Amino acid sequence: MTTTSVQQALAGHIPEGGDVTVRGWVRTRRDSKAGLSFVNVSDGSCFAPIQVVVPDALANYESEVKRLTAGCSVIATGTLVKSQGQGQSFEIQAASLEVVGWVEDPETYPIQPKAHSLEFLREVAHLRPRTNLFGAVTRIRHCLAQAAHRYFHENGYFWINTPIVTTSDAEGAGQMFRISTLDLANLPMREGKVDFSRDFFGKEAFLTVSGQLNVEAFCLSMSKVYTFGPTFRAENSHTTRHLAEFWMIEPEIAFADLAENARISEEFLKYLFRAVLDERADDMAFIAERVQKDAVTRLEGFINAPFERIEYTDAVALLQKSGHKFEFPVEWGLDLQTEHERWLTEQHVGRPVVVTNYPEHIKAFYMRLNDDGKTVAAMDVLAPGIGEIIGGAQREERLDVLDARMDQFGLDREHYGWYRDFRRYGTVPHAGFGLGFERLIVYVCGLANIRDAIPYPRAPGQAEY
Amino acid sequence: MTTTSVQQALAGHIPEGGDVTVRGWVRTRRDSKAGLSFVNVSDGSCFAPIQVVVPDALANYESEVKRLTAGCSVIATGTLVKSQGQGQSFEIQAASLEVVGWVEDPETYPIQPKAHSLEFLREVAHLRPRTNLFGAVTRIRHCLAQAAHRYFHENGYFWINTPIVTTSDAEGAGQMFRISTLDLANLPMREGKVDFSRDFFGKEAFLTVSGQLNVEAFCLSMSKVYTFGPTFRAENSHTTRHLAEFWMIEPEIAFADLAENARISEEFLKYLFRAVLDERADDMAFIAERVQKDAVTRLEGFINAPFERIEYTDAVALLQKSGHKFEFPVEWGLDLQTEHERWLTEQHVGRPVVVTNYPEHIKAFYMRLNDDGKTVAAMDVLAPGIGEIIGGAQREERLDVLDARMDQFGLDREHYGWYRDFRRYGTVPHAGFGLGFERLIVYVCGLANIRDAIPYPRAPGQAEY
Repeated sequence: MTTTSVQQALAGHIPEGGDVTVRGWVRTRRDSKAGLSFVNVSDGSCFAPIQVVVPDALANYESEVKRLTAGCSVIATGTLVKSQGQGQSFEIQAASLEVVGWVEDPETYPIQPKAHSLEFLREVAHLRPRTNLFGAVTRIRHCLAQAAHRYFHENGYFWINTPIVTTSDAEGAGQMFRISTLDLANLPMREGKVDFSRDFFGKEAFLTVSGQLNVEAFCLSMSKVYTFGPTFRAENSHTTRHLAEFWMIEPEIAFADLAENARISEEFLKYLFRAVLDERADDMAFIAERVQKDAVTRLEGFINAPFERIEYTDAVALLQKSGHKFEFPVEWGLDLQTEHERWLTEQHVGRPVVVTNYPEHIKAFYMRLNDDGKTVAAMDVLAPGIGEIIGGAQREERLDVLDARMDQFGLDREHYGWYRDFRRYGTVPHAGFGLGFERLIVYVCGLANIRDAIPYPRAPGQAEY
Repeated sequence: MTTTSVQQALAGHIPEGGDVTVRGWVRTRRDSKAGLSFVNVSDGSCFAPIQVVVPDALANYESEVKRLTAGCSVIATGTLVKSQGQGQSFEIQAASLEVVGWVEDPETYPIQPKAHSLEFLREVAHLRPRTNLFGAVTRIRHCLAQAAHRYFHENGYFWINTPIVTTSDAEGAGQMFRISTLDLANLPMREGKVDFSRDFFGKEAFLTVSGQLNVEAFCLSMSKVYTFGPTFRAENSHTTRHLAEFWMIEPEIAFADLAENARISEEFLKYLFRAVLDERADDMAFIAERVQKDAVTRLEGFINAPFERIEYTDAVALLQKSGHKFEFPVEWGLDLQTEHERWLTEQHVGRPVVVTNYPEHIKAFYMRLNDDGKTVAAMDVLAPGIGEIIGGAQREERLDVLDARMDQFGLDREHYGWYRDFRRYGTVPHAGFGLGFERLIVYVCGLANIRDAIPYPRAPGQAEY
């Protein structure tokens, strides 16, 4: 008797006619008049459940099998046979069907075999992986994550686990979460202020907003590195596009300039999408059927077309000449809004676009100043259907220029002394980018709300579990 | 002209006699009387630097090449030739050597070409990846992480990103970090207490201590899952064995019992160690030469021997009969201390041991109560040289028993209502374990202090960068 996953059974990993055991949860049960019950069993290993055909000859047929409801856990043993049904490769002719766990009060069980609203499922996030949609999203998320690690590993990058707790990113402190063990009922004070020297870390500490500055230390010794970990924003934003806790992928490449950075971002995204199409065809077919019609063709189009490159200055001119009425103003020196990005990538180009060389005053201090003195070597990758999906830049490797930029932004050189060291000791040109992992999943799965792209979403007022 | 990594050049990825360019940082420079300089260049892609032989005929030989010091960044172009030197496969006969970045004030540059104390290097954690040891640790860490993801993927597990922000783990709140955006100078109060309903998440929130409870939701729908992410302990512990922020790997397997859990933990550890020996032979040779003599043979021994299994009750009897003088008492009902664990695995068995079935009152509420009513189906994997490396358990899947255990531990059933749901709706036996990733690295690399196993260590009073 071979115990297999449903995926292995459906893929014919054991010989037809062989004995097989699968274990999982009932999705549906249908009884025929011919003294048979058809029980669909899912174990999450693939999109499809496997059909278990149960004859009424089984001793527990009346007492148990006919009482099975969605969510009950079972162990089905029998013979693997070719399925007569459409779209099913194999099914199991049951010799036994053991009920492992019942569903207490099936009437009130939240995951009924019917469509539920996504809002409702967010309320029962601990049970929603039992649905078709969240099973598919979970497998696609896994597939994308594995593909990301694999791409980097195959291309000579090292995964660097940059810190979650940080005392470094003073610039963004307004939108950061403080981490503390101080007793709020008895705060230590000093000269009228909270004395963080008596807090756990000996100074005020926050949750990281990005691993980039930290990972540069490893870029400038290991050459090719990346982060893949949680980052945080304390923005009081209730949109469908923002999470307080989300995962970011940030490669950083020594000796790379902006063109190389753009090339890698294109290669990387295409690698990820090819992996999903190759490895999760079952889940993508469901997404295309139920969530977003063009889910598959859209990714195929993305993979097959070269990304366009446009300078920010040219993009502004195009937008101004477009004749399109935008809500937000279009003017050199202003940042592009989502409506502008989507017009560029959807209306004007019709495929992904890398916009480069943005005005220096709307981008971060560490981005490399171009020779024109007005722009920095920043880039955003825009994709039809979503707008910005990647943001990156070549970094400022010249100490004197970096110092001037820090002065301009009112940043304390001493606080960034360690970051300046990389420019004092064997500096090299380098570049990198950031990909919000949940935004990627939203794009691939055609989700309307980013809270459905992560197992346990965190947002203002929301941190259940 | 092919630009390659040092690793590719040394491995002969381009033909002997071919043109090649490498880019990296100078480790050492030695000038010969014959009008040649030997410049060792590292780019972090492998342990060894590549030797670049620079003739004095180069135009910048006197002005630049002879001024090169450790840490300078260079681009070396020339011909790849078989090396005459020992232990080097190939070297580069330079046609040009471009200096990209100098080292400002080489005398005070912290990373000199000599041995530094680990204490000193912890003070300059942003520069320590430039040393032999931390380069090796970084590559080994990456190799272990990739191998972990690969093992799970190949065996049908899904990676689940459980939340970092949690409001759930009330039991351990004393040792948890609070996350907040409240203004400490103006705390909202209600009935004499801080009113967390006005905090960002609408209730008191903490950094997670484990993803296990959260990942069970996915185990009980996807069957085989794992976490791999940061976890936190606010213990005021200044030992060499504890970090405030560390990465944990936690698989969780539906329908697995304790024996299957132990089998998987053995298979998993052996898979990881085999990957390090196969893929990072260069770094492990250095570790064996400079850090721990038996670093390689120890892992080989670990892989080749089956783990022993011992019941806790038998382990206590063995310890009591050992005649060994222990600092801590040995008595049925007390937890095993490191000295006991090390005696068992090092003195008594001489290889890894899985100790099973611990007294119920010293283990967590969610571990499965055995039929004796006195022990739970917990396990610890002990290894020579380190003691406990993995802790795990079969989980309590019976709602009535779980409820009784929660009452016993004084836990609020309502607070864990979502966790109880898994036992109300299609419960199944399941089991899992946790592996502290930095402790694994300490073991593999023979490190004395866990702060050297993570890029940016966080501990009481320590959160630089």
